[in-house]
Amino acid sequence: MRAILDDKNLLSAEEALKIYINSTLPRPLGEEEVDILNALNRVSAEDILSPIDLPPFSRSTVDGYAVRDSETPGEFKLIGKISIGEYKEVRIKEKEAVEVDTGAIIPDNASAVVKVEETEKNGDIIVVKKKMRFGENIGWLGSDIPRGFEILRKGEIITPEKIALLAAVGIRKVKVFKKPKIFIITTGDELIEPGLPLAKGKIYESNSFYLYAKLMSEGYDVIGYTHVKDDKSAIKSELEKALQKADIVILTGGTSAGEKDYVHQVIRELGKIIVHGLKFKPGKPTILATVNNKPVIGLPGNIVSTIMITERVIIKYLSILAGKEFADQYQVKATLMNDVKADKNRYTYVPVYLFIKNDKYYALSVPFDSYMIGTFASADGYIGLEPGKELKEGEEVLVYIKRIDLRPVYIGEEEPTILKELKEFRKIPLGSFPALKALKYGIGDIVVISKLYESSVAGDFTFTRKILQNGEGDKIGYHEWIGLSKLIDSPSIRLRYISLSVNFLGRATVIAPATVINEGKEITKEELVIIVSKNEYKSKLKTFFE
Amino acid sequence: MRAILDDKNLLSAEEALKIYINSTLPRPLGEEEVDILNALNRVSAEDILSPIDLPPFSRSTVDGYAVRDSETPGEFKLIGKISIGEYKEVRIKEKEAVEVDTGAIIPDNASAVVKVEETEKNGDIIVVKKKMRFGENIGWLGSDIPRGFEILRKGEIITPEKIALLAAVGIRKVKVFKKPKIFIITTGDELIEPGLPLAKGKIYESNSFYLYAKLMSEGYDVIGYTHVKDDKSAIKSELEKALQKADIVILTGGTSAGEKDYVHQVIRELGKIIVHGLKFKPGKPTILATVNNKPVIGLPGNIVSTIMITERVIIKYLSILAGKEFADQYQVKATLMNDVKADKNRYTYVPVYLFIKNDKYYALSVPFDSYMIGTFASADGYIGLEPGKELKEGEEVLVYIKRIDLRPVYIGEEEPTILKELKEFRKIPLGSFPALKALKYGIGDIVVISKLYESSVAGDFTFTRKILQNGEGDKIGYHEWIGLSKLIDSPSIRLRYISLSVNFLGRATVIAPATVINEGKEITKEELVIIVSKNEYKSKLKTFFE
Repeated sequence: MRAILDDKNLLSAEEALKIYINSTLPRPLGEEEVDILNALNRVSAEDILSPIDLPPFSRSTVDGYAVRDSETPGEFKLIGKISIGEYKEVRIKEKEAVEVDTGAIIPDNASAVVKVEETEKNGDIIVVKKKMRFGENIGWLGSDIPRGFEILRKGEIITPEKIALLAAVGIRKVKVFKKPKIFIITTGDELIEPGLPLAKGKIYESNSFYLYAKLMSEGYDVIGYTHVKDDKSAIKSELEKALQKADIVILTGGTSAGEKDYVHQVIRELGKIIVHGLKFKPGKPTILATVNNKPVIGLPGNIVSTIMITERVIIKYLSILAGKEFADQYQVKATLMNDVKADKNRYTYVPVYLFIKNDKYYALSVPFDSYMIGTFASADGYIGLEPGKELKEGEEVLVYIKRIDLRPVYIGEEEPTILKELKEFRKIPLGSFPALKALKYGIGDIVVISKLYESSVAGDFTFTRKILQNGEGDKIGYHEWIGLSKLIDSPSIRLRYISLSVNFLGRATVIAPATVINEGKEITKEELVIIVSKNEYKSKLKTFFE
Repeated sequence: MRAILDDKNLLSAEEALKIYINSTLPRPLGEEEVDILNALNRVSAEDILSPIDLPPFSRSTVDGYAVRDSETPGEFKLIGKISIGEYKEVRIKEKEAVEVDTGAIIPDNASAVVKVEETEKNGDIIVVKKKMRFGENIGWLGSDIPRGFEILRKGEIITPEKIALLAAVGIRKVKVFKKPKIFIITTGDELIEPGLPLAKGKIYESNSFYLYAKLMSEGYDVIGYTHVKDDKSAIKSELEKALQKADIVILTGGTSAGEKDYVHQVIRELGKIIVHGLKFKPGKPTILATVNNKPVIGLPGNIVSTIMITERVIIKYLSILAGKEFADQYQVKATLMNDVKADKNRYTYVPVYLFIKNDKYYALSVPFDSYMIGTFASADGYIGLEPGKELKEGEEVLVYIKRIDLRPVYIGEEEPTILKELKEFRKIPLGSFPALKALKYGIGDIVVISKLYESSVAGDFTFTRKILQNGEGDKIGYHEWIGLSKLIDSPSIRLRYISLSVNFLGRATVIAPATVINEGKEITKEELVIIVSKNEYKSKLKTFFE
């Protein structure tokens, strides 16, 4: 039986999550008390109010003399000293001063502390030449926070600063929610474990590695993971075993509605599928289910689908099991450098490179499919579009940001001889199209454009490469962003990187630069125009070209 | 001997760090190989290039039929099937089709895959009604990344996504730098361990708790910590012991140049102080030193100084020992809601609350001193100002952001009876000044302004409270942001929270609302004007007022 997940009948991630939450009623899994030293990144299970005023007494913020500000400037009689950590109840009378350490308690009726270095001392007379302001160099009792002030709330993730604050008010133990226990099951005959040799037609398994790292980094306990072949009874028995120890089980692969998609069959037989299929790209064939009253989530096999559903759905669901207040990821506003189009029917997530210029962000979206972990992991963030949405270049978008990469940027045509000299650069060798956009927005440190793509452009250097043709039969072509694509009609394949053409030598007609393939008949020359942002990079390239 | 750290002769954090790095020549502490499962947040010690093209073969992205796009629409003869994970070398001839699973290898010369649901099948004839585009539903060999593409670089912090990518290209082990081992020594007679009763004049120790949590969360190994009294020989012996096992030792307290500041004396006797004192606020009395060729850093005792020097100096230094490429924290642009002024001579860091309105950030800076961990930990980020810099309301600033708090906001005068009903609100009861700013920028959900502070304001509700006077002698006053401060001339203390006034009952003249102190003679009434953003909050307050 092959059922079809029809885009039009699917739910958005938000709708699906809502229904799933309503059906499964997730809640925190109990509480435990931990020492604040072990509380980092745990989720508070209680509202904590400060049991004390902070600071607990009015104290000096400098080494100096406590006086009444209204009597300054003037001469004061030194009547004693209060050291840090020491307790003395002292009141000063007219024109009297008390020596105090930084952090020491000050006399009740003092209203300023004069720094030692701003006084002169003659015997027991302190000469203050400066007019002091009221409260100068005093940290009043409770001036930081008063007793009863909320310092941590239920659901809050405990940061190093909050640990400092708990310590500062004298709290040593804190109640936190227990961590959800997660078990991961990956399925698929095509998967090979990383580290082993890759057989033809197979790919490496990466889902479990991602899920393990991501869920641990979010503060959950991944208590185990296993890989099973596409074998219905094996999947069934692993799922049953996992459910005995875990609070939630995540499976990958086999979630479509095809005949060999055993995961959805097993879940259906053992429990109840609440949601099958999301209006979401990448990640449509997602299953949200319950088995034995425990949440079971099935993810499609493609790694970027796993990442996106984890970020947008699983983390939100787990945050409820963990008792977390939900906080979404950071988003930054950026100007879009090229047009982007969503899937007609699905919410669509697209990776972007981010560039900063004059404190403004620019986002270049990259062509992308759900198997492209390399592209996704090299990007700086991603944007989400509503179904059918088209965004135009120049529009502002909100980017879910993963990192800021501040290295100088090489962007444009792939030329191996130049690229290998640029160790410290960020490399985006995706062709002339992004290079022209970079030029337009004043971005990029070394920008390389092919005259085959845009003949009118001028630059700091020109690099001319011979274009060779090698072999017979189907023509190997290039992605439309690349200059060389203009030379090749009706290709049988379109590569995004010119260097990939070597894979086809001897099997097809390969048209590529002499710097990529060694042999072939010269059919033309390609001029690369190189635009360089800074003199230091110019000198670097000059040495290289000479 | 009391030496003075003169602001004018001090170095900025950047200058100091540069000198310290030049004097100590820190470098990564060696390498080790780890399984990618244990590589999360570790620092790569090598550049890794992809050993394979990804995907390693051209594959179908759907369940369907592989054909040549130029022959669509049309009828095709089904000549076989390739399942996922299976390897078959198949070439299709004119008007032939091969059935393929999602993820299965496609015939070399196919140029599109038609989805099953977009075809009709009659025996071994597949009817394709649609015109296919070149490359439709095909993930070309290497279309994600080509062999030799850089997937991880030396110094990069390994994220869950990078772990997925390493797995996807078949890499199971990765060389990472060893983690620096850190020992923490806190000093100070005034410090009490959290959890124990607080004696008068003493405060709780929080530095070691912060440092432990923060440094662990940054991926370092805190191998131990100890507290010692202000006793020179004890400090000396603990430092010597710590240096035997740690790569770096951090001490807190005793770093000023006073007579009881033993830390600086001990470091000077055992090793060499490279930098003493920074043009930095909070955190001036910082020591950067070496003892036995190992870095030893002395931090001032105030907790927020420890936090700031950790963030702006120690983390940068440790990142070199750890082999990290340095990446600064996120900063966001915000509009300043009030004026801020730096110290005349020092780089100054000031905590801010952040608010979002229409995707724009607004930053309210809060009066602050280096002992104020409560204020600092409640803020959302901080801004840095150059010495002598004055920023005016309305200017744009860059904020080092710690979190985004999306709860509804109560801002303005502190009124305990209202505040205790607002469990889900973020509470900023700092007085009428920030409330008026919130109003101006359209921020805040419940904004409470005293007519004593600003008489012309109108709102959704009015709350009238009796102001009582209790006791004799020195008058307890309030911070100038608070309406009640207008009533009290020549106070002997100025509280930032009205609720703190109860501490002074029976000891001074306390002027406070009847909702805070129970007894006293009524001297006037204060009207609080309450402005509410949304109907749901209005109904909430309505129930409360009725």
